[in-house]
Amino acid sequence: MNEATISALSERFGIQHPIFGFTPSEHVAAAISRAGGMGVLGCVRFNDAADLDAALSFMDENTDGKPYGVDIVMPATIPKEGTSKDLSELVPEGHKEFVERTLLKLGVPPLSGDDTSAGVLGWLHSVARAHVDVAMEHNISLIANALGSPPVDVIERAHEHGVPVAALAGTAAHARRHVENGVDIVVAQGYEAGGHTGEIASMVLIPEVVDAVGDRVPVLAAGGIGSGRQVLAAHALGAAGVWMGSYWLTTAEYQLGDSPVQTALVRATSSDTVRARIYTGKPARLLKNKWTQAWAEPDAPEPLPMPLQNLLVSEAHHRMMRGGDPEVVAMPVGQIVGRMNEIRPVAEVMASLLAEVEEARARLKA
Amino acid sequence: MNEATISALSERFGIQHPIFGFTPSEHVAAAISRAGGMGVLGCVRFNDAADLDAALSFMDENTDGKPYGVDIVMPATIPKEGTSKDLSELVPEGHKEFVERTLLKLGVPPLSGDDTSAGVLGWLHSVARAHVDVAMEHNISLIANALGSPPVDVIERAHEHGVPVAALAGTAAHARRHVENGVDIVVAQGYEAGGHTGEIASMVLIPEVVDAVGDRVPVLAAGGIGSGRQVLAAHALGAAGVWMGSYWLTTAEYQLGDSPVQTALVRATSSDTVRARIYTGKPARLLKNKWTQAWAEPDAPEPLPMPLQNLLVSEAHHRMMRGGDPEVVAMPVGQIVGRMNEIRPVAEVMASLLAEVEEARARLKA
Repeated sequence: MNEATISALSERFGIQHPIFGFTPSEHVAAAISRAGGMGVLGCVRFNDAADLDAALSFMDENTDGKPYGVDIVMPATIPKEGTSKDLSELVPEGHKEFVERTLLKLGVPPLSGDDTSAGVLGWLHSVARAHVDVAMEHNISLIANALGSPPVDVIERAHEHGVPVAALAGTAAHARRHVENGVDIVVAQGYEAGGHTGEIASMVLIPEVVDAVGDRVPVLAAGGIGSGRQVLAAHALGAAGVWMGSYWLTTAEYQLGDSPVQTALVRATSSDTVRARIYTGKPARLLKNKWTQAWAEPDAPEPLPMPLQNLLVSEAHHRMMRGGDPEVVAMPVGQIVGRMNEIRPVAEVMASLLAEVEEARARLKA
Repeated sequence: MNEATISALSERFGIQHPIFGFTPSEHVAAAISRAGGMGVLGCVRFNDAADLDAALSFMDENTDGKPYGVDIVMPATIPKEGTSKDLSELVPEGHKEFVERTLLKLGVPPLSGDDTSAGVLGWLHSVARAHVDVAMEHNISLIANALGSPPVDVIERAHEHGVPVAALAGTAAHARRHVENGVDIVVAQGYEAGGHTGEIASMVLIPEVVDAVGDRVPVLAAGGIGSGRQVLAAHALGAAGVWMGSYWLTTAEYQLGDSPVQTALVRATSSDTVRARIYTGKPARLLKNKWTQAWAEPDAPEPLPMPLQNLLVSEAHHRMMRGGDPEVVAMPVGQIVGRMNEIRPVAEVMASLLAEVEEARARLKA
């Protein structure tokens, strides 16, 4: 992908740098947009539409008029689903017992009386649709879908509002399908990425997706991007820009406070992740620790399909977060975690990244 | 890694291009060296020292005086081992029965009377040492070890002969240890690579290894390299050169004749590989097909440790190769197999690769 195409992408979105930053935090997302990238707010954690509405109002007020996007989790085909209560009844007792037994064994305390967790409902199609409804009322510049093409009517509705749609792809075949469905940007996400991820690593996947979509849409490289050399490599492979998720988890704006998660992230090496179905029911890369190991033991049940698995474990996730032990957290993150060794503000992370790209470019030209 | 370092590597080895090509075929290895890269002959298939001696004499005569290397398979610590016959007795009957049953189910004919297989003994430490002895009698310019640092006395002996030693590394910690052991070149091999491979993908691994070894030794990037964009990306990530294995398997010089392997390779996409312990006992990436699927079925036994697993399956490999069904072969290959879509001579592959690097470089500069 040449400089002209990279510039075209930035111009199209009105961003200074073709760096798309996915994050569940509106504070981090706003800071990424302010720093000249495209902050993309993950919506899956918002059970209540009013909470997402408030977060997006915060984005509108804190991005200095710069563009930002949202990320939803929506399969292209609408699944049969009941309410969260109906679904809970589909979770086998044996699975619930395993979770309780494991939390006890790992020393995770129960929640205090007034601290409850309703689970994460954003994996439900109906909730994801509500996210789209709310997002359309705000000044969004991008809707990205973590599960590939959203349903065609959602794409059409976004286009009516002048909002481009991005979709994650783990294979060239996925990418081709997204373009046929009307998607405007393909995010080629390699095996090394955090969260839901496929089997093909970025080095192989990115040029394959670029070749598959041709000049029709730009491709962003995701998975393994956390330094200027990796950004430059992504461009060498043909990507017009990069999509980074994990790397912002150790930014100061995350405001995780005393949470054990950032401690665990800063400690971890690139070998400390594992790809497993235990978070949502689909393969996702997570921080490897006592919790993921418990699910790999012979007495562990098979994870349930989406969305049941997340209903099963979401209170456990909440308890572990409150528990405070960095060895016992549930955290999606990519192999780039090995490079996330300090807590820094987003602006500083972005400035280092850009400086490193220029250094790497100069070295390559020298 | 800058142009100066890349040139230094090429000058040190007297090669035109910092492209190291690993292959089990002396015909392919010689062609890689003649085309300006460094052909590296895999020794593991040579049970008889005299056969390796003949192959290396062929290399001496067919490389136009250009440098070439050898690749051995030798753990740093010398394992306890008996003869091949003793070891065979350690293979459980249940495993042998599973292999026989699977071959029968997949329609693989028995070998004809005069066609026997002694198994591949190169996985034995004693045989790998014999490979070193033979190689030292030839005009080799590199000894690479697929299992990391070779024993220190082997490194010292290579250095006495003025031969640099390369070692494959799947983590930064491996790479550091190799340098401490006296290794001269580290090959950082990512998850996407064929054969024995670790969990960390090239995009993350390469800069991590480059940072770990600093200026002490050059790093070659392996895993996912099969186009000029990927070579350029490897340089952007800090590698001084690339190490390619899979990509030569579909070259004309391989002389596989009517073998089903090249047919299977040309057909396969990047999704058609699997990492499993069924080839040697250690995790290795293989072409995914009916044979690998049989080992993933509930009735399949756990693979045996190295070197027993290869003793168990080596006759089966030979039978499958003779059998002629492209859906039933045992073949180590990386995810780059999706880009291996035609049979071409080595010189043509090398010329395309170099032209693509220049194109990619021009695009990135534009």
